[in-house]
Amino acid sequence: MKQIVLALSLLAVPALAEPAFSPDVHPDGTVTFRLAAPKALAVRLTGEAGEVALTKGDHGIWAFTTPPLDPDIYTYTFNVDGVKVIDPANNNLKYNLMNSESQVAVPGPKSLPWELNDVPRGELHRHFYHSTVAGDDRDFIVYTPPGYKATARKRYPVLYLLHGYSDDATSWSGAGRANVILDNLIARGQAKPMIVVMPFGYGDTAVLKAGLTEVLPRVEQEYRVSARREARAIAGLSMGGAESLVVGLNHIDQFAYVGGFSSGGLNTNYVAQFPALDAAAGRKLSLLWISCGKDDGLLGPNEKFRDWLASKDVPVDWVETPGRHSYRVWRRNLAALAPLLFQTKN
Amino acid sequence: MKQIVLALSLLAVPALAEPAFSPDVHPDGTVTFRLAAPKALAVRLTGEAGEVALTKGDHGIWAFTTPPLDPDIYTYTFNVDGVKVIDPANNNLKYNLMNSESQVAVPGPKSLPWELNDVPRGELHRHFYHSTVAGDDRDFIVYTPPGYKATARKRYPVLYLLHGYSDDATSWSGAGRANVILDNLIARGQAKPMIVVMPFGYGDTAVLKAGLTEVLPRVEQEYRVSARREARAIAGLSMGGAESLVVGLNHIDQFAYVGGFSSGGLNTNYVAQFPALDAAAGRKLSLLWISCGKDDGLLGPNEKFRDWLASKDVPVDWVETPGRHSYRVWRRNLAALAPLLFQTKN
Repeated sequence: MKQIVLALSLLAVPALAEPAFSPDVHPDGTVTFRLAAPKALAVRLTGEAGEVALTKGDHGIWAFTTPPLDPDIYTYTFNVDGVKVIDPANNNLKYNLMNSESQVAVPGPKSLPWELNDVPRGELHRHFYHSTVAGDDRDFIVYTPPGYKATARKRYPVLYLLHGYSDDATSWSGAGRANVILDNLIARGQAKPMIVVMPFGYGDTAVLKAGLTEVLPRVEQEYRVSARREARAIAGLSMGGAESLVVGLNHIDQFAYVGGFSSGGLNTNYVAQFPALDAAAGRKLSLLWISCGKDDGLLGPNEKFRDWLASKDVPVDWVETPGRHSYRVWRRNLAALAPLLFQTKN
Repeated sequence: MKQIVLALSLLAVPALAEPAFSPDVHPDGTVTFRLAAPKALAVRLTGEAGEVALTKGDHGIWAFTTPPLDPDIYTYTFNVDGVKVIDPANNNLKYNLMNSESQVAVPGPKSLPWELNDVPRGELHRHFYHSTVAGDDRDFIVYTPPGYKATARKRYPVLYLLHGYSDDATSWSGAGRANVILDNLIARGQAKPMIVVMPFGYGDTAVLKAGLTEVLPRVEQEYRVSARREARAIAGLSMGGAESLVVGLNHIDQFAYVGGFSSGGLNTNYVAQFPALDAAAGRKLSLLWISCGKDDGLLGPNEKFRDWLASKDVPVDWVETPGRHSYRVWRRNLAALAPLLFQTKN
C-alpha cells in the first residue's frame, strides 16, 4: 500500500475528511479494524480476517482487534446494518466484477512469494482488442520478466494464466500478485524467466478456443516467445482452472504443461469433455498439476477428476494444501507451480 | 463496463447473491440508482449524478431516478446512515487512494472523446522501480499508440501526464480514459501519434525533479521517443497541474509544451517559484495551456497566475470551461490539448 507524500512542500492541498485509521496492523500480527459509523445499529467484520461483530466506542467509531494472524494477505469488508461496505480508510482494494473487497497485508519474511523484494522487476503490458468471436471489446495483460527486450534474440517460454469467475484480466496481477511472485522466483533462480499472459476469460467454448485463435497468435507475433509446446503452459484458478484443463488437455499438441488450481465447473462427463485423453496422450504432457485447498468446497469434485485421471493411467501431480477458495491458496499455488515449468529440454 | 458471459456453457458456477440492479441507465439519459438496505434508516445519493435522498420501496430496496443527464461519466456513492458506500451492484469503480467511488456512464455520440470506438487501440505498459530519491517502490504507466513497435526507426513525441492529489499512476488511464481519448484522436488524424507517460506523482520538489532524473531517462532508453524539447510536453491536473507548471516552466530547455488543468497548490510567490520566467523564456515555449472549470474553487488562483503571466508578457492560452474539479472537465481538457501538441517542425 502506498503512502501519500505530499507533492511539493509548497502545495496547499485542501484537507480531506479523516476517516478512522484502519486497518491498523500491529507488530505481533494482530489487526485492529475501525469504522466511523455513529448512526449505525450494528457493524460486523466479514471475510478472511474474521467474522465478528465490532464494538461501538467513542465518537461513533466501531472497532475489533483480531488475534495474531499469520503473515498473509486477507480480504475483508464491513457489514453496516446489512449493507456490504468497503473499508473507506483503506486503499488496498481487491477489485472484482461482482464483489470488490478490502485487503489487509500482514507482513512476513521476505521469503514469502508475494512480498516485495529489492530485486529486478518485470513489466505488465495491457492490450485492448475487439474479439470477433466473443463480439465484445476485451483486454489481456502480459508480464515480461526483468531484462526482457522486444529486440532480444532469445525466445521465452510462456504461461497462459487464467482468472476465476467474477475476476477480470487484472486479477492475477492485482489480487494474485503474479508479477511479484515471478519477479521473486526468477531473482532466486527458482523459476525460468518466462512470459505470463493473463487474458479475459469469459465466454462459451468457442470463445475459449478463440483464446487460442485470437490471443495466442498476437502474443507470438508481438513478443519473443517460443511456439514450441514444451515452452507453453496453461494454468488457472477456479473457473480458469477448469478452462485450463479443458483447453490444455484437449490441445496436448500445443501445451506440454497444464495446471488447475481449485478448479470449478468441469462437466463430470469426463469422457465427453476429454475424448482423446488416455495414457498415451497423458505421457506426452511434461506436467499435469492439479491442486485444491483442503477446506474448499471444490475439493470433492477435484478428487473425483483426479481419480478418473488415475483410472485412465494419466499421470497427475496432485497437490492438497491448507485453505479455502481464496487467493491465499492461489498465490501459493502459482509460487509452487512456476518452478516446475519449462524444465524439459526438447 | 464488461458483461460477464459465463465461461463454458458446461460450467456449473455457484450462484452469487443478487444485489439490486444499479445503476440502471435508461435510453432518455435518466438513471435509476438502487441499493438493497432493508435495515438502513436513511440512504442518500452523493456525487456528480445528484445529491438527494433515496426512497425506500419494497423488499428494502432504496431508489432514486435522476432527471435526464448529459452523456458523460459521473461519479457517485451512497451514504447509508452516515457511512460512505460504493454501489455494490456496480463494477465501474473509480479507484482512488483516499476516496474510491462508483461511476456511471451515460452513453453519447461516438464522437465524444472518451467513447470506445472501433479504431486501432494503443497499449498500456506498467513499469515498477525503486526510487532512490523518494525512497520507495513506485510505478509509472506508458501509453504507446496503435502500431507502435519497439523496433521502429521512427521516434515519437512524448507527453508526461501527471495525476492529481489522492490519485495514483493508474488514474489517467482509468478515470481519465487517456488511452481511449488518444486512440480516438489519433484515429481521426486530430492528434499526432505520441507516447504518454503517466508517473506516480507524490513527493517534495527533489522527488519531482527526480521524475526527470529517474523516469525520463528510462523512458528514453526503453521507448522510441524523441529527446528534442519540441517533441516533449508536460501537463497534469490539479496537484499534477501545479507540478507540470513548476517542472515545465523551470525547464523550458527540456519541454516546449506545458499544460495545467485546474492546477492547485502553486506558491503565490510566483517570482520565487519561477525565477527565470520572463517574456523571452515564454517565447521559447510552443504552447503554455492553462485551463480551469468555471465552477471550480481553484478558478481564482488560476486566474491570478494567468494575470501574473500576462504582466510578465509570457504568452498563455487560457481556457475556461464549464464544470467543477472533476474528470468530467479533465477528460475534455486532454481531448482539447492533445491536438495542439507537437505541431512545430524544428
